[in-house]
Amino acid sequence: MSLLLAVTGWDYGPWVERFRTAAPGLDIVTADGTFDPATVRYAAAWNAPEGIFANLPNVEIVFSLGAGVDHLLKRGDLPDAPVVRVVNDDLTMRMTEWVTLQVLLHHRQQRAYDAFQRAGKWEPLWQPVASRVRVGVMGLGVLGRDAVEKLASLGFDVAGWSRSQKEISGITCYSGDEGLKTFLARTDILVVLLPSTPDTSGIINAELIRGLARDGVLPERFPVLINAGRGALQVEADILATLDDGSLKGASLDVFHIEPLPSDSAFWPHPNVTVTPHVAAESDPQAIADGVVEEITRYERGEPLRYTVDRGKGY
Amino acid sequence: MSLLLAVTGWDYGPWVERFRTAAPGLDIVTADGTFDPATVRYAAAWNAPEGIFANLPNVEIVFSLGAGVDHLLKRGDLPDAPVVRVVNDDLTMRMTEWVTLQVLLHHRQQRAYDAFQRAGKWEPLWQPVASRVRVGVMGLGVLGRDAVEKLASLGFDVAGWSRSQKEISGITCYSGDEGLKTFLARTDILVVLLPSTPDTSGIINAELIRGLARDGVLPERFPVLINAGRGALQVEADILATLDDGSLKGASLDVFHIEPLPSDSAFWPHPNVTVTPHVAAESDPQAIADGVVEEITRYERGEPLRYTVDRGKGY
Repeated sequence: MSLLLAVTGWDYGPWVERFRTAAPGLDIVTADGTFDPATVRYAAAWNAPEGIFANLPNVEIVFSLGAGVDHLLKRGDLPDAPVVRVVNDDLTMRMTEWVTLQVLLHHRQQRAYDAFQRAGKWEPLWQPVASRVRVGVMGLGVLGRDAVEKLASLGFDVAGWSRSQKEISGITCYSGDEGLKTFLARTDILVVLLPSTPDTSGIINAELIRGLARDGVLPERFPVLINAGRGALQVEADILATLDDGSLKGASLDVFHIEPLPSDSAFWPHPNVTVTPHVAAESDPQAIADGVVEEITRYERGEPLRYTVDRGKGY
Repeated sequence: MSLLLAVTGWDYGPWVERFRTAAPGLDIVTADGTFDPATVRYAAAWNAPEGIFANLPNVEIVFSLGAGVDHLLKRGDLPDAPVVRVVNDDLTMRMTEWVTLQVLLHHRQQRAYDAFQRAGKWEPLWQPVASRVRVGVMGLGVLGRDAVEKLASLGFDVAGWSRSQKEISGITCYSGDEGLKTFLARTDILVVLLPSTPDTSGIINAELIRGLARDGVLPERFPVLINAGRGALQVEADILATLDDGSLKGASLDVFHIEPLPSDSAFWPHPNVTVTPHVAAESDPQAIADGVVEEITRYERGEPLRYTVDRGKGY
């Protein structure tokens, strides 16, 4: 009875160590080694090698080693076992740090001050207080909810949108296609924390961006887009086109269709775009291993799994 | 019975309007017009013209129109009446926005990513979680306390220092000269929100900077200095020298000895310095006028003044 680690792009050695630290009694095998498929009870995967899941007759849970599960659900060989996401405070807090930083960068006009500094120019700008700036968060899972609460505590006028209606104390929550229009029309700073699913593929397109508020308190700076979800959510040509025609005033992007972002991408030199290399919520690997082991321990005690993915919804 | 507006560098017209809006019944006179000094019961000042206070026999309160009161206390003609600061949520929230932005800029290594972006380089950096980063806030008045609480809610390991001992739930507070050494030695990101007084003049010097933690989780990035207090707090040559010898890894400065910062200042082109033009907490002028009128209203009802300055301490 063992846990199979199946990853590509990451070294196995440190991951084996982390799982041994978290659960000294667990038998760890790796997809690049030899193992008896019949003994694999749990799998923990990140971009697992093609076909590795095809012959695991006794697997009971498949864990994703990152926040997203799109890398699992798109596979042809996924076993008929629960797919469980990693949810831990470490990952949530990191994402909220990054989102808060990017929202404040736009709100406090830091990129304009950066340009003034390069020019040696002392030029105070009129600054609205946060309560006059409308932040909209798309995606109200664990990450979205934490971002919404922290941004509201800084004074922003925050609303949320999700496919199915959610309730968050003190926050206006919109849902569905109709709710989306109303939500966008009141949003100066759009934060996207959606999962990547067939439904959300390309959702950040020209129509969505053109639906954002035009009556912001800083019309020369808003609306802006902040995407820390997945690259597949965004139509990159539409982001560039709306930046160039002025429908979009700025963007902070941590995720892209092709990663690493190709060196000839127009995002790199764009004066109104901040590019970070998919680091918004690069969780501590030990915290991830600990989270997986915690779920296994609960499961073996007979407790229900807490973060099972709905395969129909894709998250 | 009137309120005297006495400012330099600001236009009187809009300020008269703001006070008329806030208190339609109040008689407003200005230092650049003619008025009967004997009728002046309140004065509201920002860098008031020299000598204007010398002959105000009946003044009962002198209000500062900004957070600092150093511009008043250093005067030779200050009447023997309570000096009252402006304290309002608007100013506090703005300061916390700016401080949070600058702390996150350093913590999330955004300036390194900015440089990578200019070079078209996709290079994820190892990122500690906020709980492993020690933020220290000097000055625990209204502004310092709010910053401490918001930074702690983002997960930072926050401590505070003030001249006299303070108590903040869940936060280690240091005080006095002995406490300062211990406080600095555990601080990776130093946030200075002290008032400008004879005691604090030049407090940010080479000795203080060299007392900051050398064992931070990101030794190539920490310690850093964030000053949003007053330029008089800092010895600017010492900041440059410690940046250059590596004792200090970065700085975010909103205030300077000479403002506007001269065009030949070495801060402008410094790769590890972020300069903003004294905009951290540029409060909404109407909110300031409203705050002054609220204090007058309370005073005339017989309630005690809430934000009287201790002239001995200077804040």
